[in-house]
Amino acid sequence: MTAPLSKSPIRALVWGENVHEQKNATVREIYPNGMHSCIADALNTQDGIVAETAVLQDPEHGLSADRLAKTDVLLWWGHAAHGDVSDEVAQRVVEAVWSGMGMIFLHSAHFAKPFKMLMGAACNLTWREAGERERLWVTSKNHPIAAGLGDYFELENEEMYGEPFGVPEPLETVFISWFQGGEVFRSGLTYKRGAGNIFYFRPGHETYPTYHDANVQRVISNGVTWAFNPAARVANPTDAPNIPVETALEPIQERGPRLHSDGEEGFR
Amino acid sequence: MTAPLSKSPIRALVWGENVHEQKNATVREIYPNGMHSCIADALNTQDGIVAETAVLQDPEHGLSADRLAKTDVLLWWGHAAHGDVSDEVAQRVVEAVWSGMGMIFLHSAHFAKPFKMLMGAACNLTWREAGERERLWVTSKNHPIAAGLGDYFELENEEMYGEPFGVPEPLETVFISWFQGGEVFRSGLTYKRGAGNIFYFRPGHETYPTYHDANVQRVISNGVTWAFNPAARVANPTDAPNIPVETALEPIQERGPRLHSDGEEGFR
Amino acid sequence: MTAPLSKSPIRALVWGENVHEQKNATVREIYPNGMHSCIADALNTQDGIVAETAVLQDPEHGLSADRLAKTDVLLWWGHAAHGDVSDEVAQRVVEAVWSGMGMIFLHSAHFAKPFKMLMGAACNLTWREAGERERLWVTSKNHPIAAGLGDYFELENEEMYGEPFGVPEPLETVFISWFQGGEVFRSGLTYKRGAGNIFYFRPGHETYPTYHDANVQRVISNGVTWAFNPAARVANPTDAPNIPVETALEPIQERGPRLHSDGEEGFR
Amino acid sequence: MTAPLSKSPIRALVWGENVHEQKNATVREIYPNGMHSCIADALNTQDGIVAETAVLQDPEHGLSADRLAKTDVLLWWGHAAHGDVSDEVAQRVVEAVWSGMGMIFLHSAHFAKPFKMLMGAACNLTWREAGERERLWVTSKNHPIAAGLGDYFELENEEMYGEPFGVPEPLETVFISWFQGGEVFRSGLTYKRGAGNIFYFRPGHETYPTYHDANVQRVISNGVTWAFNPAARVANPTDAPNIPVETALEPIQERGPRLHSDGEEGFR
Repeated sequence: MTAPLSKSPIRALVWGENVHEQKNATVREIYPNGMHSCIADALNTQDGIVAETAVLQDPEHGLSADRLAKTDVLLWWGHAAHGDVSDEVAQRVVEAVWSGMGMIFLHSAHFAKPFKMLMGAACNLTWREAGERERLWVTSKNHPIAAGLGDYFELENEEMYGEPFGVPEPLETVFISWFQGGEVFRSGLTYKRGAGNIFYFRPGHETYPTYHDANVQRVISNGVTWAFNPAARVANPTDAPNIPVETALEPIQERGPRLHSDGEEGFR
Repeated sequence: MTAPLSKSPIRALVWGENVHEQKNATVREIYPNGMHSCIADALNTQDGIVAETAVLQDPEHGLSADRLAKTDVLLWWGHAAHGDVSDEVAQRVVEAVWSGMGMIFLHSAHFAKPFKMLMGAACNLTWREAGERERLWVTSKNHPIAAGLGDYFELENEEMYGEPFGVPEPLETVFISWFQGGEVFRSGLTYKRGAGNIFYFRPGHETYPTYHDANVQRVISNGVTWAFNPAARVANPTDAPNIPVETALEPIQERGPRLHSDGEEGFR
Repeated sequence: MTAPLSKSPIRALVWGENVHEQKNATVREIYPNGMHSCIADALNTQDGIVAETAVLQDPEHGLSADRLAKTDVLLWWGHAAHGDVSDEVAQRVVEAVWSGMGMIFLHSAHFAKPFKMLMGAACNLTWREAGERERLWVTSKNHPIAAGLGDYFELENEEMYGEPFGVPEPLETVFISWFQGGEVFRSGLTYKRGAGNIFYFRPGHETYPTYHDANVQRVISNGVTWAFNPAARVANPTDAPNIPVETALEPIQERGPRLHSDGEEGFR
Repeated sequence: MTAPLSKSPIRALVWGENVHEQKNATVREIYPNGMHSCIADALNTQDGIVAETAVLQDPEHGLSADRLAKTDVLLWWGHAAHGDVSDEVAQRVVEAVWSGMGMIFLHSAHFAKPFKMLMGAACNLTWREAGERERLWVTSKNHPIAAGLGDYFELENEEMYGEPFGVPEPLETVFISWFQGGEVFRSGLTYKRGAGNIFYFRPGHETYPTYHDANVQRVISNGVTWAFNPAARVANPTDAPNIPVETALEPIQERGPRLHSDGEEGFR
């Protein structure tokens, strides 16, 4: 049966550290309204996505519990001020992912608190700031995150990130970068944590106009669509409920000694 | 060419919370020297493994930097006192894994600090303490962790853990449990974080004699052998070195604006 | 920006072996128009999906190159006559998957030619036909294939399939079954081959009314939506093009001896 | 407990197509005794490995059932004559892998019959024969296959293979190559099929002295050690046994209609 689909747009929230845009003339010139605004503006040209922004300097970094509850996909760019993000907000973001919020980590967000917490790994790499050529190859044919791209695309000036990249094996490797100076890097990686889809996307050093690039914008908007989980958020993503014997799905008799009484909370 | 192999034994360290063994008569009767000692004793019957123990109540929980450096595979059992493990020691254990130490998490250690930190996930599940039958099926044929087992083995009395288990997709699923009361659980899962191999193994509720079971002992000693990484430990598992332009493997010219000066530390 | 979405429906094709429906009174009574028709009818009640059917007895088994080109997701049920499927058609189906066609294999299709060819594995299991209870647990929280389900659902009468299931590690394990007779089985598994998404779904023995079950129908329609890849089909999914030196993306000089002349086909 | 280990050496078998060594003067000069002999000779310098060779031109291509049963790890190099390998021998090799034989596919063996059959994918790629520089980066820190290597190694003259490489997502990505002409390639990938471990390793074009390179030799011998599964071979790797109701592990009553009689073979 065919029927017209009418869906609410995906609610994206672009979080920016917003530090170098304030302090560095080069960055400010490229991104006069901040990198987050550039990214959000590009998302807002896409049908089916509405994007807002939040910054480190906002109360609660713009990431109140209420706002996260209304966010379908959170995008994160940070670099100089990872340590200024409060542990409480970082934990809140992580739990929102577990409950089903999609999340995209951009470039230097490989060292952002929520990324390290979600990966359980060092997330380290090698790097060089030389404005060299980067060529991103698609390694997962027709992956939705690569929709509309050819087999590769290029960025004439980018910072180099090199392997080994200290992350867990991904669900899928979507992009691998070639760098002019001789390195390679897994530049597009997907993960799932709880009910939340996660995409790491490498490019985006702040002294280059990367987020004005049409291919980069396309990958990011594809990523938002991919990461969106339409299911209702999991209400209590850390719950570990006790199942009393008398409600077991198959009839069983309690046997042997116990530590806990019925319906008691487990230890954490 | 054939030659006799002579290898140093794998140095295992069995960490036990050692709380219920002190407080609960049932547990003390089953494990008069503690669960950790029972596990270590079984490991010490195996050629090629030497096992010691450490407990929560030791200084630094028995997990000084020096001792972790001399540990090839750490085994962890905890339940009632996860919160009493210091954050500093938990982080030290996690970094030892990243540097190449193998690690086995047993039963209720699914909520141990180092496990949650390494998984980046809620690690939650459902549970019932009814002494019901558990049957563990091998799902990865001839996996080294299942060496010497048939297609399944049984534990007549165990606590139930039920899906959904809030962990990332594993590298491999080695065991899946059937429970008498109607649930299933992924009871043997492998992961890699940094250079370290991780194995989660479900059975081991403290009021049952699980760690006296020959099949359970076999899986644990197989797990130690599997998790052991013979490579030298990574010295600085969180390093993210700058690669100066002039040492690039392919000759490149620096182009465009920069944030960092040569050899500078990156932001974290 | 918000805009109404109008999409073409997903074109599903349900392939049935259609043997037992003709020969066995029990099966015919449950599925008077064939299992394939029951499955297709259920899909046709869903917005956004249009389903047709094809059977073994059709010319080219109903799977001409032209028809596969117009199929977004192919569903496959077979059991008694796997060997009657021509190798040519099986290969054609496999290449359609590589080019981006989604595919769902149902129940005894674990031994269908295209499934074995796509898995590269024996795809074997243990089995028992006793009409026992099966309970399918969701293991990947909020996975789109499990949309609308609770943590589990039950089928009161099903054939048992038991581990070890001889398939490669999946991208994701979505369901694990509990069986009354004591076995477990990974009942929902996802894979990607080339540009094609693949979902294996266990239930569906022909002597039980499984495909009339609302939860089973829901999983299958979720599976169709999940497996659909909206990208244009890859034109030549087995191509291995030579890249001549003079069109290399970075200027290089040819060095050393060669086997091939420019633009020559590689060996296969 | 410590005890001296004494183990039988791993029995490796290096299979070579042995065509270009006979027909092409350049190849013959580099590998006067064939590429297979060069690889086997290097393996025979390693403690704990004994290597033999077999070639396409041998009866049954040197791969009789008896010989495969005595092979722990099979290495495969082929290029010009993939089509000359008999389907029967290819299937025999595949089933040996399912039963637990380790297997390493080298370079152009990405199009060998057993590799395509084990992957279930097109296994295609782009290529260029220009003697360009290849740099292989280790992406899985301290992986046993990379033992003894630094973060990368180089081959000054190699054929280029480029992404997208048409293979399933691997268990682990161990190496990624950088090519001088601008491409990247996942050059070291691990898989498991049935009880057998599989490693694909990219380098080895026949007109270059790649298999004389010390790093390449080290990776190959590491790969043999990694791929070796010490468990006894699975006797019947394609068996799908019926479990009669009366031998069910939990007592159940047969219910509902059946297709099969007790102990009957299932359909294939």
